[in-house]
Amino acid sequence: MHLLAIGGSDGGISAALRAREIDPGVDVTVMLADSYPNFSICGIPYLISGDVTDWRHLAHRSRPDIEALGVQLMTDTVARRIDIEGHHVVATGPDGREQRVGYDRLVVATGAVPARPPIDGLGRLGPADGVHLLHTIGDTFDILDTLGERDVTSAVIVGAGYIGLEMAEALTARGVTVAQVEQLPQVLPTLDPALGALVGDELRSHGVGVHTSTRIAGIERKDDRLVVHGATTDTNEVFDQATDLVLVVAGVKPDTALAADAGATLSAAGAIVVDRHMRTGLPDIYAAGDCVITHHVLLGDTYLPLGTTAHKQGRVAGENALGANRAFAGSTGTQVVKVFDLVAARTGLRDHEAIPAGFDPLTVAATADDHKAYYPGAQTVHVRITGDTRTGRLLGAQLVGPIPTAVHKRVDTAAAAIFTGLSVAQLSDLDLSYTPPLGSPWDVLQAGAQTWERAAALH
Amino acid sequence: MHLLAIGGSDGGISAALRAREIDPGVDVTVMLADSYPNFSICGIPYLISGDVTDWRHLAHRSRPDIEALGVQLMTDTVARRIDIEGHHVVATGPDGREQRVGYDRLVVATGAVPARPPIDGLGRLGPADGVHLLHTIGDTFDILDTLGERDVTSAVIVGAGYIGLEMAEALTARGVTVAQVEQLPQVLPTLDPALGALVGDELRSHGVGVHTSTRIAGIERKDDRLVVHGATTDTNEVFDQATDLVLVVAGVKPDTALAADAGATLSAAGAIVVDRHMRTGLPDIYAAGDCVITHHVLLGDTYLPLGTTAHKQGRVAGENALGANRAFAGSTGTQVVKVFDLVAARTGLRDHEAIPAGFDPLTVAATADDHKAYYPGAQTVHVRITGDTRTGRLLGAQLVGPIPTAVHKRVDTAAAAIFTGLSVAQLSDLDLSYTPPLGSPWDVLQAGAQTWERAAALH
Repeated sequence: MHLLAIGGSDGGISAALRAREIDPGVDVTVMLADSYPNFSICGIPYLISGDVTDWRHLAHRSRPDIEALGVQLMTDTVARRIDIEGHHVVATGPDGREQRVGYDRLVVATGAVPARPPIDGLGRLGPADGVHLLHTIGDTFDILDTLGERDVTSAVIVGAGYIGLEMAEALTARGVTVAQVEQLPQVLPTLDPALGALVGDELRSHGVGVHTSTRIAGIERKDDRLVVHGATTDTNEVFDQATDLVLVVAGVKPDTALAADAGATLSAAGAIVVDRHMRTGLPDIYAAGDCVITHHVLLGDTYLPLGTTAHKQGRVAGENALGANRAFAGSTGTQVVKVFDLVAARTGLRDHEAIPAGFDPLTVAATADDHKAYYPGAQTVHVRITGDTRTGRLLGAQLVGPIPTAVHKRVDTAAAAIFTGLSVAQLSDLDLSYTPPLGSPWDVLQAGAQTWERAAALH
Repeated sequence: MHLLAIGGSDGGISAALRAREIDPGVDVTVMLADSYPNFSICGIPYLISGDVTDWRHLAHRSRPDIEALGVQLMTDTVARRIDIEGHHVVATGPDGREQRVGYDRLVVATGAVPARPPIDGLGRLGPADGVHLLHTIGDTFDILDTLGERDVTSAVIVGAGYIGLEMAEALTARGVTVAQVEQLPQVLPTLDPALGALVGDELRSHGVGVHTSTRIAGIERKDDRLVVHGATTDTNEVFDQATDLVLVVAGVKPDTALAADAGATLSAAGAIVVDRHMRTGLPDIYAAGDCVITHHVLLGDTYLPLGTTAHKQGRVAGENALGANRAFAGSTGTQVVKVFDLVAARTGLRDHEAIPAGFDPLTVAATADDHKAYYPGAQTVHVRITGDTRTGRLLGAQLVGPIPTAVHKRVDTAAAAIFTGLSVAQLSDLDLSYTPPLGSPWDVLQAGAQTWERAAALH
């Protein structure tokens, strides 16, 4: 029995390790296109900021660690084609020569690639010019090269999602003046505008220039510098800035060519369709991670690429490839980001996501101290609770607060409540911890839930 | 309609405020034996430590705030007798005169009183001698008087539960050398010994003398000082210490005389028996808080006095007193304590609690970093997961870690999982938040759950 996983990140490695854990007798190989198996992509901003002092530290596990767990690694090997009949993958190795790698079960975990927004010059300019995308360790080295070789005093970041915000902090930490440009009217558009505004304030208070409702049209090289130009989407005001480095981080799209060529079905969003057992429908071929659709507890099938989900899906794929019958339990879309001293977290749905899913949502805002105000250091947490007015079901929670307020773990309670189908009212039934230096008799989430109940009663 | 609550702490105040919230037309009175309505008993150690600079700050709400919400307060009024037929309470007011207070619905929330272990001298000596119990704001003033009036350089704390530990920190913060004495073999006996040991280390590293397996037999006054003597329970080694202040914090027992005299049934542990609607069985009389039995999600009826539970029970009693039909959803026994820089939290059951409840428990220990080790400041969290080997159900979680590791909110996820009946394996299905500075792709709880699954497979 030979299990082959294509992709050296969370999905592929999790499948491989889980298979070895279940059956130490099975042959397991992971084939990856670069030299960096099991690296933490999410950690890249912290390498660039200098918080992580050696790029090797970004490996969840080192190569010898992985091999010691019985997983063979084929690095710098690009999978070109899956031969379903022949049960093998045609790949190009580091020497450029084509080879065949047989499998009994295959896990496709090819991940995602950065989206390339329609910006004039983005196709022409590249790392050598100081124009960067960011998704791989290779991309990271390119950025570090630019930072090391040029006198980078300013940067324009196109995109204000999770990676964009983390990179704004990282470059600021390196003394670079950052302009953050987002075509939507707020930074962190995955949160409601009132909470996105708090994150925007945090950026500005650390010297980041925030340019929302601004679309970049083009990037040009002028001598040793770059000029980024665009306009605001509402008033058509000109955006025009000379800079040393441009980073385009505008989301990702699933990398599906290999599976699609082999006959896998793609979703409307372009991700590989899998069932909850991570089966592609192609014989003996599973898929997991950022290249596949995501089963969401409240939405059904969607596309929501996240490392945590890739780990879980990979684990399921690895088990099922060995004959188990596990189902991926589903995502609730839990996400968190640290932006300087602030943390923003969400789980579940916001109104505009809940309505098309057939819910009748109501979202309320509340604020509460993270712990009793009489104990020193209490800080405000902003919470938004979304519930279904028809059934009372908890649909979503969004929280923003400074790091010590632990919103990153408070959101987990809401994630568990959504996962198990609790109502908003039942949040107040949960027996959550309390001690004055760290909490209140009613947790922040419960304060939000009680605000929601009052609003829903009047609805 | 007149709702009368007896007791000015969490249970009584919650019942009163909830009734007014539901029906702003209802007359609501809270009768309390002292002058401090709605004070945070849990905050007392932080007043003594000096973290809270004014005792008035310990009020969850001020007297005017409560009255503005439409709740009448009868302070310094001791309820002596309930006349069920006459629907009134006989009470002694601040002037010492007996009065009758009528009610349509009554909520008994008389709370608990400190346990008095059989220590020779404890009945004879009191605050004037520097010997203290600690449960009320009045007790707190007594301790502050002793600290202010005497030259207190050392203290003996009898008991190493939550309050005992917090008081060890508080007195240490005031420059007092503390000897903490516990008759059981570990401090914080509500956690497994391996975790209690970590808390013991934390105490010692801050200069607290830790004397476990030590039973105090007597306290004597010698001139201006006190002598505390006893012996170890295992080797019968003598404990003999001169000190300036003795604090006995050895748990509480329910204060039930009023209700029992009126005919309420008491449990084996001596708490007022109520159903999940907080009805005592006596006509129109409800009860809530530290004086009643606790419905526990896994244990059924038990006694587990906690402020969070009192808030929830009071809220249910207040609703039902107005004719609603709410049930108290149940406690999972979630508790947390900060001891210097360490936080210890638990929810659910430990082995010796689970076995008599009919479970077949297995507990495993694991450690995990609170966030990715490559990001600066990662710290170890110790976790213990208890599950039922027969059904796989999650029964309990215990966590110990430094304050920034957020174990106080990580335990809440386990509390939600226990509340909703998840299995240990389903902990790994939960979509918990991850960003490298604040977490890992698998949360600490999930690392513990996966350790449990491996151990259970071999069990």
